[in-house]
Amino acid sequence: MKNRVTDILGIEKPIIQGPMSWLTDGKFVGAISKGGGLGVLGINAGQSEPAKTVEETVENMRREVRIARSITSNPIGINIIPTVAGFDLYTQPMLDMMVEEGVEVAVMVGAFSKEWTQKFKANNIKIIYRGAPTVEVTEEAIKGGVDILVATGFDEGGQVPANVIGTFSIVPLVVDAAKGRVPVLAAGGITDERTAKAAMALGAEGVFVGTAFLASKESRMADNIKDALIKSDANDMLLYRTQPAYYRSLPGELPNKLAELDRNLAENEEIYQASNPASGMRNGMLYGDLSKGFASLGLGISMIHQIDSVEIIIDRLMSGIE
Amino acid sequence: MKNRVTDILGIEKPIIQGPMSWLTDGKFVGAISKGGGLGVLGINAGQSEPAKTVEETVENMRREVRIARSITSNPIGINIIPTVAGFDLYTQPMLDMMVEEGVEVAVMVGAFSKEWTQKFKANNIKIIYRGAPTVEVTEEAIKGGVDILVATGFDEGGQVPANVIGTFSIVPLVVDAAKGRVPVLAAGGITDERTAKAAMALGAEGVFVGTAFLASKESRMADNIKDALIKSDANDMLLYRTQPAYYRSLPGELPNKLAELDRNLAENEEIYQASNPASGMRNGMLYGDLSKGFASLGLGISMIHQIDSVEIIIDRLMSGIE
Repeated sequence: MKNRVTDILGIEKPIIQGPMSWLTDGKFVGAISKGGGLGVLGINAGQSEPAKTVEETVENMRREVRIARSITSNPIGINIIPTVAGFDLYTQPMLDMMVEEGVEVAVMVGAFSKEWTQKFKANNIKIIYRGAPTVEVTEEAIKGGVDILVATGFDEGGQVPANVIGTFSIVPLVVDAAKGRVPVLAAGGITDERTAKAAMALGAEGVFVGTAFLASKESRMADNIKDALIKSDANDMLLYRTQPAYYRSLPGELPNKLAELDRNLAENEEIYQASNPASGMRNGMLYGDLSKGFASLGLGISMIHQIDSVEIIIDRLMSGIE
Repeated sequence: MKNRVTDILGIEKPIIQGPMSWLTDGKFVGAISKGGGLGVLGINAGQSEPAKTVEETVENMRREVRIARSITSNPIGINIIPTVAGFDLYTQPMLDMMVEEGVEVAVMVGAFSKEWTQKFKANNIKIIYRGAPTVEVTEEAIKGGVDILVATGFDEGGQVPANVIGTFSIVPLVVDAAKGRVPVLAAGGITDERTAKAAMALGAEGVFVGTAFLASKESRMADNIKDALIKSDANDMLLYRTQPAYYRSLPGELPNKLAELDRNLAENEEIYQASNPASGMRNGMLYGDLSKGFASLGLGISMIHQIDSVEIIIDRLMSGIE
């Protein structure tokens, strides 16, 4: 299959893995890129402890890039999160490393940075941008030079959008705002043939997939969380307020407490602090300890009934796209 | 087009209008049924003040039925909300009237009632049931004899589901739970060709449409709210807690106050009372006064750019379904 997304990224199938920090590594990302999609190394990819210096962060990432490269010569991506100018210690060293290693794609999240978009593109690195799914941000990002946009719906896992707009409604909104200038990827709840097909019907030209890939043999997610995932459906997920807006988790000792704080009208900041923000994802999803962490998954878990290889997952998604 | 939904209901197109209380009347419902979909009279259809007795309620509804009948001989529906046994004064008189007038379909909302499902079916009235979109309620309703189920996503307008699961994720969940025994309609955000197509891709066999029909020439919604609708997108909608869970509205004096109460962590009950629950929808959407009411619309408003006739709206939706 060929379309604008595959052409821009130089990949075979318009399936882009959403970066998921600790839960990614070179093996996982390499498997997805080998399968024809785009694997993307997240912040802290392959690590068990946070790096202590910028240099260590970049060298850790370089090691995971090389592991992915040992699996496939297909394009791969790295997640970048440019922060406020002057306080951004990471983005330039990461760009330098990406150029040295020939990494093809940057997945930029957070506030839109025209400066960094231009710098990456000047180094032949394509930019996929995932920011607030509004008409205004879409316009800013396209004028600023992004290659591909992600429209994220509230059906996703992780830090869900503050606007609480489902995938069903946000994809056509962003597609219309883009006016055909760049292709749009749909994110949030895409886990099977039907949801992949629906994403394309809504106007997306590719899919941005997190949870479905976490439910793979190759992912680093803890086995007990994989087990809980395949036994759960969307109605089992807990939703609670936090900073900046909302979070979702499988039930467990800590998530139950967070949901209770929400019901009791605790301040968002109090719920955020109680969630162990620095280590909650790692504890819950990498180590599988829901007494000290949370397990955020997308609402598409209802359609996931077994842990398959990345290759089978890509085939399933593609059968809805083609 | 023929499928299970059109066969069961005896209609031409699998497009069912969601009942919207005051905002419906015989003229509007007749136009939708004449167009080949199923028009459905909501509670308080055609009225400007609440009826004072059960008899008056039923006779008001009979009048609207006859107005719809004067427009088309195609099937029409009436919204019923059976309440706790012993306190339910309305359902039997409404059933009697429906039998007398030959009304073909009841759209039942709220807690599932097996007793009323059986009574309606014994009188050759088909039952479309819209309840909590869970595996358990789906099983109960199918075993209890419903003809068609509605899977409602958080993208809808009105009193949105407490589980905060988007249309994109809830439709395949309910379709899988139904296991092919009854067809499922998708509700929440279906306003254009793309969203209708996506609903069918997700496994629905028809669409349940509210907001798109409110944006019609035939609807009773106030002109200033129609104007605001076509100028707004999903990101403009305010979301606030209330009883039993959440509500959404276009901005305005009262809705802004309700959203502020939510931000200030007021109790759900306090926000509910502040919303003028008895008259807020009528004030806001029938009279267009957002100082005394609210204007709840689905997140599919982003794709609505003009006020068309019901006939054109049905054609647009069907172009995604066929």
